[in-house]
Amino acid sequence: MVCPASRSVFHNANRQYLRAMKPGGTTLKMVADAAGVHASSVSRALDPAKRHLIGLHVLKRIEETALRLGYRRDMAAAALRTGRSRLVGVILPDVANPVFGPILHGVEESLAAQGYSAVVANAGGLAERAHEAAGQLIARRVEGLVLATAEMHDPVVTLCRTEGIPVVLVNRAEAEGRVASVISDDRMGMRLAVQHLVALGHSRIGHLAGPQNVSTGVWRLEGFRVAMQAAGLDEAGVVMAAAYSRDAGREAAQVLLAEHRPTAIAASNDLLALGAYQALADVGLRCPENVSIIGYNDMPLVDIVAPPMTSIRISSEEMGYRAGQRILAAIAGEMADAGTELLQPSLIIRQSTCRPRRT
Amino acid sequence: MVCPASRSVFHNANRQYLRAMKPGGTTLKMVADAAGVHASSVSRALDPAKRHLIGLHVLKRIEETALRLGYRRDMAAAALRTGRSRLVGVILPDVANPVFGPILHGVEESLAAQGYSAVVANAGGLAERAHEAAGQLIARRVEGLVLATAEMHDPVVTLCRTEGIPVVLVNRAEAEGRVASVISDDRMGMRLAVQHLVALGHSRIGHLAGPQNVSTGVWRLEGFRVAMQAAGLDEAGVVMAAAYSRDAGREAAQVLLAEHRPTAIAASNDLLALGAYQALADVGLRCPENVSIIGYNDMPLVDIVAPPMTSIRISSEEMGYRAGQRILAAIAGEMADAGTELLQPSLIIRQSTCRPRRT
Repeated sequence: MVCPASRSVFHNANRQYLRAMKPGGTTLKMVADAAGVHASSVSRALDPAKRHLIGLHVLKRIEETALRLGYRRDMAAAALRTGRSRLVGVILPDVANPVFGPILHGVEESLAAQGYSAVVANAGGLAERAHEAAGQLIARRVEGLVLATAEMHDPVVTLCRTEGIPVVLVNRAEAEGRVASVISDDRMGMRLAVQHLVALGHSRIGHLAGPQNVSTGVWRLEGFRVAMQAAGLDEAGVVMAAAYSRDAGREAAQVLLAEHRPTAIAASNDLLALGAYQALADVGLRCPENVSIIGYNDMPLVDIVAPPMTSIRISSEEMGYRAGQRILAAIAGEMADAGTELLQPSLIIRQSTCRPRRT
Repeated sequence: MVCPASRSVFHNANRQYLRAMKPGGTTLKMVADAAGVHASSVSRALDPAKRHLIGLHVLKRIEETALRLGYRRDMAAAALRTGRSRLVGVILPDVANPVFGPILHGVEESLAAQGYSAVVANAGGLAERAHEAAGQLIARRVEGLVLATAEMHDPVVTLCRTEGIPVVLVNRAEAEGRVASVISDDRMGMRLAVQHLVALGHSRIGHLAGPQNVSTGVWRLEGFRVAMQAAGLDEAGVVMAAAYSRDAGREAAQVLLAEHRPTAIAASNDLLALGAYQALADVGLRCPENVSIIGYNDMPLVDIVAPPMTSIRISSEEMGYRAGQRILAAIAGEMADAGTELLQPSLIIRQSTCRPRRT
């Protein structure tokens, strides 16, 4: 067989193949012989996705032999053989925002359990950057993408569908539900927040709404309106924040306080609520004595701010874990393309909410 | 040329090569022809590491043509050709700890600027898990590793040196300095903390020390001792925390308060300091009126805890960015194997420290 045209490809692939044997020069066959099993058993035993097929006793013998002989499964060579990278791209809106750490942690953990790894890209809140990052990840042949950056009509989802790349949304979903998502029930969570304030006796309740191009901002606002109507209350006190940040929350809360004089504020996330803490201090008001504030996400450390924040807990790490499991199922062709997995949020009562003062 | 033995490798490599052309079927050559340049110019223009070699005017024309024709550089095919994955592994002790988000952000950003991506693994504070993660990342052919998990004598560093994989430590260094590291000057930072407390008039100053198997714990303790000696003060009040966590800080602070009755506490990190806040509340003492507390790291949100925390600022994101640049330089063979890059910490004064009460 003569192969002049593809010579360089062949040579390079061969070089890769030889490098695959490098560490110690131990081969799969050598491990199999030493352990007294077939090479295919060693291959399965060292593949996190297939090791359950091997009996525990044999598995242990193979692992010990591999360790003793210094054999390591070469995943790059396996990727070359199978055409599968075992990489999943994860695009985060802001790696530095405390709420995304636990989500990434959960994704990474579920991927690792199946021998997959997470390649992380940070979009920094820019849709354009998320699209660029997705293109680069696809060019790397990630087998799927987990997006924490989805907008209501998301161009990255369109890209993934065009390219035939499995994609799962986490924390934020699309309006149309074109692909699978794992999110917390935002409408229900905001209803819990409003019901808590109503039960305390508040009737002038304002809402610091999140950005309206992402589902959390839209659906938490919807939840607010539905809950206020259900309680027979005026739902006029809504101010949109320009971003999910403390500064944007402070600015929006200043408007809310000046125009609507609420006795309580339900914020679309904890950073906005922290901004509202500052806006209150700016005009000499106290939380919760003058105005109750409830956050959303229950992100790390809100239990130790002043006052400790009442918030809606979303299970960030579990959400990430399930999104990881779902993208692996999608990669394996084991699930429907779309569908939303809704996690239940819960109310965490601390000291930023209390009964309104009679004035 | 006959190549029977390696037939399957060749076939698979060839399949990969063909897949590389997939999206749209547009080739590099087609882009070059349409833009009126050589194929090598297109290749350079679309490689983040080489695009600076192309004039801005031509660069723009090539990019527009590539976009118009739907051409995307296939990085997996490039990896196959060059034997380079353009992946860097990043091992974090705890993805969910707020201080590591900014470090990861910095690393990811500097890698992206050169067309590299970060594959993230979470060791969850276990040395064994870090070692296992490193093995898996090496098996994926990452070109280098950035470790935020280094212990004073780190087995992962030994592994990387054995395997010939470039490695850079970030935030935590080794005792021996076998490899390059980018860290904050821990001794200097703790001196700043002690000098601040001494300047306020404190003389009974306790130290909540971090774990002594990592450099930050050891060197901040050293800095404490040196600064106390320099001030002519008794440096007996040191209690080691079992981990960098609020719970461990609370427990250690209870011992420190009971046995040494300090008027001020310098903690080895912010989580330990937050634990000390709780230990004070446990026994009915107030911060800073009864005991001043200073943290370390100035992690996100410590400005809004109660009381807002005086802390030592380390530039987490910059540290990550520089570690990313250093691992790229190491991969390119452009730098010495070892050497420590020390960033200067600074004192951020807030409301958890004040003059001691006369008792």
